[in-house]
Amino acid sequence: MTASYFADIPKVEFKGPDSEDPFSYRYYDRSQIVLGKTMEEHLRFAVCYWHTFCWDGFDVFGAGTFNRPWHAGDLDQAAAERKLDEAFAFFTRLGVPYFCFHDVDVMAAAETPADHVRHLSAIVDKIADKMAETGVNLLWGTANVFSHPRYMAGGATNPDPDVAAFAALQVAHAMEATHKLNGENYVLWGGREGYDCLLNTDMRRELDQLGRFLTMVVEHKHKIGFEGTILIEPKPHEPTKHQYDTDVATVYGFLKRYGLENEVRVNIEANHATLAGHSFEHEIALASDLGIFGSVDMNRGDPQNGWDTDQFPNDLREITLALYYILKSGGFTTGGFNFDAKVRRQSIDAEDLFHGHIGAIDLTARAFLNAAAMLEDNVISQFVEDRYAGWKTGIGAQMLGRDASLADVAAYAVDQNIQPALKSGRQEWLENYLTRHVK
Amino acid sequence: MTASYFADIPKVEFKGPDSEDPFSYRYYDRSQIVLGKTMEEHLRFAVCYWHTFCWDGFDVFGAGTFNRPWHAGDLDQAAAERKLDEAFAFFTRLGVPYFCFHDVDVMAAAETPADHVRHLSAIVDKIADKMAETGVNLLWGTANVFSHPRYMAGGATNPDPDVAAFAALQVAHAMEATHKLNGENYVLWGGREGYDCLLNTDMRRELDQLGRFLTMVVEHKHKIGFEGTILIEPKPHEPTKHQYDTDVATVYGFLKRYGLENEVRVNIEANHATLAGHSFEHEIALASDLGIFGSVDMNRGDPQNGWDTDQFPNDLREITLALYYILKSGGFTTGGFNFDAKVRRQSIDAEDLFHGHIGAIDLTARAFLNAAAMLEDNVISQFVEDRYAGWKTGIGAQMLGRDASLADVAAYAVDQNIQPALKSGRQEWLENYLTRHVK
Amino acid sequence: MTASYFADIPKVEFKGPDSEDPFSYRYYDRSQIVLGKTMEEHLRFAVCYWHTFCWDGFDVFGAGTFNRPWHAGDLDQAAAERKLDEAFAFFTRLGVPYFCFHDVDVMAAAETPADHVRHLSAIVDKIADKMAETGVNLLWGTANVFSHPRYMAGGATNPDPDVAAFAALQVAHAMEATHKLNGENYVLWGGREGYDCLLNTDMRRELDQLGRFLTMVVEHKHKIGFEGTILIEPKPHEPTKHQYDTDVATVYGFLKRYGLENEVRVNIEANHATLAGHSFEHEIALASDLGIFGSVDMNRGDPQNGWDTDQFPNDLREITLALYYILKSGGFTTGGFNFDAKVRRQSIDAEDLFHGHIGAIDLTARAFLNAAAMLEDNVISQFVEDRYAGWKTGIGAQMLGRDASLADVAAYAVDQNIQPALKSGRQEWLENYLTRHVK
Amino acid sequence: MTASYFADIPKVEFKGPDSEDPFSYRYYDRSQIVLGKTMEEHLRFAVCYWHTFCWDGFDVFGAGTFNRPWHAGDLDQAAAERKLDEAFAFFTRLGVPYFCFHDVDVMAAAETPADHVRHLSAIVDKIADKMAETGVNLLWGTANVFSHPRYMAGGATNPDPDVAAFAALQVAHAMEATHKLNGENYVLWGGREGYDCLLNTDMRRELDQLGRFLTMVVEHKHKIGFEGTILIEPKPHEPTKHQYDTDVATVYGFLKRYGLENEVRVNIEANHATLAGHSFEHEIALASDLGIFGSVDMNRGDPQNGWDTDQFPNDLREITLALYYILKSGGFTTGGFNFDAKVRRQSIDAEDLFHGHIGAIDLTARAFLNAAAMLEDNVISQFVEDRYAGWKTGIGAQMLGRDASLADVAAYAVDQNIQPALKSGRQEWLENYLTRHVK
Repeated sequence: MTASYFADIPKVEFKGPDSEDPFSYRYYDRSQIVLGKTMEEHLRFAVCYWHTFCWDGFDVFGAGTFNRPWHAGDLDQAAAERKLDEAFAFFTRLGVPYFCFHDVDVMAAAETPADHVRHLSAIVDKIADKMAETGVNLLWGTANVFSHPRYMAGGATNPDPDVAAFAALQVAHAMEATHKLNGENYVLWGGREGYDCLLNTDMRRELDQLGRFLTMVVEHKHKIGFEGTILIEPKPHEPTKHQYDTDVATVYGFLKRYGLENEVRVNIEANHATLAGHSFEHEIALASDLGIFGSVDMNRGDPQNGWDTDQFPNDLREITLALYYILKSGGFTTGGFNFDAKVRRQSIDAEDLFHGHIGAIDLTARAFLNAAAMLEDNVISQFVEDRYAGWKTGIGAQMLGRDASLADVAAYAVDQNIQPALKSGRQEWLENYLTRHVK
Repeated sequence: MTASYFADIPKVEFKGPDSEDPFSYRYYDRSQIVLGKTMEEHLRFAVCYWHTFCWDGFDVFGAGTFNRPWHAGDLDQAAAERKLDEAFAFFTRLGVPYFCFHDVDVMAAAETPADHVRHLSAIVDKIADKMAETGVNLLWGTANVFSHPRYMAGGATNPDPDVAAFAALQVAHAMEATHKLNGENYVLWGGREGYDCLLNTDMRRELDQLGRFLTMVVEHKHKIGFEGTILIEPKPHEPTKHQYDTDVATVYGFLKRYGLENEVRVNIEANHATLAGHSFEHEIALASDLGIFGSVDMNRGDPQNGWDTDQFPNDLREITLALYYILKSGGFTTGGFNFDAKVRRQSIDAEDLFHGHIGAIDLTARAFLNAAAMLEDNVISQFVEDRYAGWKTGIGAQMLGRDASLADVAAYAVDQNIQPALKSGRQEWLENYLTRHVK
Repeated sequence: MTASYFADIPKVEFKGPDSEDPFSYRYYDRSQIVLGKTMEEHLRFAVCYWHTFCWDGFDVFGAGTFNRPWHAGDLDQAAAERKLDEAFAFFTRLGVPYFCFHDVDVMAAAETPADHVRHLSAIVDKIADKMAETGVNLLWGTANVFSHPRYMAGGATNPDPDVAAFAALQVAHAMEATHKLNGENYVLWGGREGYDCLLNTDMRRELDQLGRFLTMVVEHKHKIGFEGTILIEPKPHEPTKHQYDTDVATVYGFLKRYGLENEVRVNIEANHATLAGHSFEHEIALASDLGIFGSVDMNRGDPQNGWDTDQFPNDLREITLALYYILKSGGFTTGGFNFDAKVRRQSIDAEDLFHGHIGAIDLTARAFLNAAAMLEDNVISQFVEDRYAGWKTGIGAQMLGRDASLADVAAYAVDQNIQPALKSGRQEWLENYLTRHVK
Repeated sequence: MTASYFADIPKVEFKGPDSEDPFSYRYYDRSQIVLGKTMEEHLRFAVCYWHTFCWDGFDVFGAGTFNRPWHAGDLDQAAAERKLDEAFAFFTRLGVPYFCFHDVDVMAAAETPADHVRHLSAIVDKIADKMAETGVNLLWGTANVFSHPRYMAGGATNPDPDVAAFAALQVAHAMEATHKLNGENYVLWGGREGYDCLLNTDMRRELDQLGRFLTMVVEHKHKIGFEGTILIEPKPHEPTKHQYDTDVATVYGFLKRYGLENEVRVNIEANHATLAGHSFEHEIALASDLGIFGSVDMNRGDPQNGWDTDQFPNDLREITLALYYILKSGGFTTGGFNFDAKVRRQSIDAEDLFHGHIGAIDLTARAFLNAAAMLEDNVISQFVEDRYAGWKTGIGAQMLGRDASLADVAAYAVDQNIQPALKSGRQEWLENYLTRHVK
């Protein structure tokens, strides 16, 4: 085997907050115990295969800039294996416990159904070996049913059922591969499950196709004995004009419509949240409140750009809030933090891949420590608890307990001649409290 | 009684497309039969009381500019009646069949529960007289539970149950007034049902409060024998940072969560749709596909401004599409087109109120004729029908009919060695077709 | 030569508004005289080479879908010639008088400076032949100094002056080619002249580099005797986070800073205008008011998507307004309407290229007829003239004529005890007027 | 005199980072010397009169919530003085060195020109006394020429020159008051200098009116001997659809057009920057690079809301970057940090005004310390310096020095057969560096 592309990069170790070494962690001390578990157990970091090992730096306006050695030549089994070697070299140097992949990220290129099955199977064995050798685990697997031209009008929602059949083939085998590799979740992102043009689209029919497809996926999970979590990843648009799994609230309604709300959870991406007009923490808190929080794709957009920039997180306040709501909801079960992020197109060197991931991991760890402190001192929760205390007794409790009708409550208002006193929401005081903990 | 503010404005009549009279309709011929009904029956136009008779032209950066005579002095019963006279003078000159109101729009100001009930009751009798006298009907009534300072932290979702009780009082009486006035719908817009700051908010609790409140409203409807439709009006934010009834998909999920999807429908506003990141026609089509389409607030935003500008519609293509999807879903039952629109702050004259409404009514009528023609020639529907034809037989039908599992479909893909051929979506051809019908 | 890809498509002819033939023009009657000139002379339509002949349908999330025959194999001189044949087959069938190109669109691929010069030169001779043979002319040429990896950090603004030198080479030769082909304009779009990250950027230095580069370009124009117009195309971002030529107002300030406001004009793109937060007509009117209006890229974005979708125009109201402001400013001199638009990724057939262009041409012609009618009846201009009439005499004239100081005007206000009366801006009446003319 | 509204709030003192007292500063130690000056001298904090003492908590959807005692009754001289007392009670308890005001914020209401002059004059004497008594100084004064209905169509750009004359009266007297009170700057925000509707607007004429008005203002400054800086505050829109002073680049072009670029600078507001599609730091860096940086309004928007929310800053990373670019450009001369921010409508108590300002002041001080450390260790500047080093010699220097023409540079490219090597932009490494300094 040739020397690794990453041969010059040392293994990244925790060296404490004062470390001057850009290839060290300052906050991510994986074995540190916080709130009863190690940081590694809490944060469950994963590297994504596609942006880091498959993307060559191209964008809509220009060609690839990265010149990774494994991108040269055709994507056959040998090339797939070379890429796999480098990926695990990266994972182990970085010291993350997990990775994630799409079927087509890891395998040799295939056009026919039979080749697809064969090529995926061939690489899964190699992946299993690598995992055993390194101890790196699989957070989740998924199938790419959006990049191939056949999916230009969608996978499950395609007007041509044969395309949906190809998607079913990919999903069935990707889930089986995930199961074989002991993956902890299986993700579906419907990048082309939506429309470019409402005029040529039967939205009701496509929603039913998608509902049926997801039901088949859930049934397959039980049939093969996969015990991981099925996750949907919301996004409002791009590449489509409109994507059906727009945001957490939309996915919740979709799951309720097809009776799947106890079978499927969400994988929330920060960049998708903000493209949908929500804050990242809103989507996490809402998913938690609706009982469908699953996992996180930890990559940000640019506040001034209206597309998916997939950048590594760098906003400590935002990520502190995200962690606060995750911890408040009990933390991850099968989920984790996947960095679904790309280094910038000008960041062409091997070391840039490390800077991107190290910065993101360390920021998340720092945010986690902030959030844990906020959780422990309980100031926000107590404030909120007190603020709604009135609902525990009297007319509030009667309303919620179905003991009072609208007419009863209206009568109460008149009888008591109520004149509710205004009470400050203390937003600035709470924001100052948060600011103080962003450190 | 003093002479009407609108005394100089003639009754607006249909004069045909070549009319040069700005106070005439060129397309809205109320008695013209199209698709089996009169235009009046199809379009069910309503004027909103609040923007047209209550707003004085203020904005956040400046004071009112309109100097309407009925705005002078205190809002007592006499002032409320003066305003009512002018409102009906306007409705009748304009020739619309419906109007809409919030409780506080029409009544004398009140601070206590008892005064609220009494003042509302006093004006409802006058409204009933006016309606009988003019033949103008009530499309919907609603309660304003967002403007008074007591609602600064929400109505149903307020941390103080007494505020929710005041809201219940208002809603109960507003619905009863609507019932008494033979209103065809009752609307709830939760303008402050959301949050300004997630930190001081218990979102799960507030959603439950809102779900319970809406359930009480539905129960009250049945109790009093009101047979109109209960409608929720989605909006993503403003004045709140986040409003719970964000968009059609979110409202659908909310209704499903609280078991109300067969009891409540949506009142879709164009401006709220675009603020939520959706096209107006998307929200209409989606509501129709989910079975919750109810009524429409026909006011646009400005494509370059990120707040609710509430302008009269002027985009013939957009409104043609809106009408197309409304007609395709069978048209209105109890709903209609309410112009929830404001003349601009510089449009200070009585005649500007007419220009705004005449333009909007005529544009909608013109769009309706366009849409009816598209519906009749059936080109789009046929194209869509053909496009998905493959799903009616074979593997498509088996998937949808639950006769094939994921494994079955995957096996089919391999066995048949499927290679789906790409087929053009013909977006440009369809858009040209539409353009041709926008006339 | 093999049969043309477009062999089955007839030449597109004007057949009048009632034509049912999707391959005909309904409004674009090139020889019809309006306002003293033919429609062809007014509208000066051009097809862009890149989107129509170079793009294969790929996007960031998926591979190309189009399978154009000329995309197979390497881009050598033979392939470039095959593409050229097809391009001119398209131009002539469509019946447009102009086309536009980037250097790399038309030529065989080249890596070295010498090859670049040689390959460009080789194809320019062929283009000249084709132009002579068909009568199709060149609206503008340009150099692509953004797609090659060398330009990842910009062309003229690159931190490496050798990259700027390569850009200079491309621009010098592209301008000379344009001159040789009697092109009427030369365009610069600085797609990577901006920054991805302010932290690694010396913005002042980059602006100076860009100012100097543009000055060299202007000097070169005069040196070689090219009499066309130099045009800058504004865009706010994408692919960069921030592009220096953000919008018309920014370009104006840039030109003033480097003393080039009489040498360079703007090429305004609708999609870039809206991405910058402006209406299309605003950018046209502003450029006209600042004296730098040049030419137009006629492609729209999607109102709900925050990136450059480059769609064919389909909004008759928007384009009517655009035409109105263009005609009001005197119309094009050297500029024209370039359709810098892509068919959608699902529109894979030869005929879709025609539907896109035919729809756009016809919409523009229809908008032109609307705008000409508005110009001729003079209602808007007269309203505006009257509205500002007060400034022609008295204190208004004194202020503008520098005959009154601030103190003089303040004294006038007190002395005259002025109480300016409010006067309606009549926005709704004007919008109704416009709506009536959008037909 | 009655007891102050703020009687229960202690004077806010610096107590160090570990202070648990929410009415203390943790970072703002006004006399601490950093980079050769005290923090007070660097940061020059100012409180704005309008949001804090004039706004009653109303928004477009609801009435005022604050019930400040000085809002009761008519705004006569006595009320204006009561408000003034409270304002200075607030300034001194907070311990800021500056305040800012509009004419109408501080004075008794006036309708006629003569009353305006008289009422302003009456309060200015009282302000002078308060300033002398407390040592609080005036950062800047301004005139409100947007709130009164007469300004509904603009001040300087109004179609009625008498309105411009009233604006001239207000500006002349506001500037004289500022001069009398030793204000250090005079600001113009053209809140209605733009358009609601392009159709009724003569943009070229309005720009000329605005250019002439600004010239009169500059001439008046010199005439009265005011030595402060004239500042324009950019904003893209709201309340207008389009505001002429859109952003820094637009203002620069405007100043160049009217020859005022050496007389006028910009007052940059964070919320206006982001509404215009720019980052806050971009606007600061650009103003500095163009030589027109003046002062700052330190208030943020909400990333998910498209209007001016005027919130207190709370994003340490953003403010650290802002401070970095301010310090890099040499820091403030006459400018400073004005908190043009409102407490939220639910934050109704006296103490909330303190929480808002204390949080903002402390955040800015903390960001300042971060930025000073970054400036001192010079890592970013050195990286940037090295990145562009190639332009100091060879072909780069020749281009910039006007020693090489486009043809020369093109010839160099061919002769040298240049193949520029790609070099990483190191964005992630730089962002990690920044993250580390955000503490």
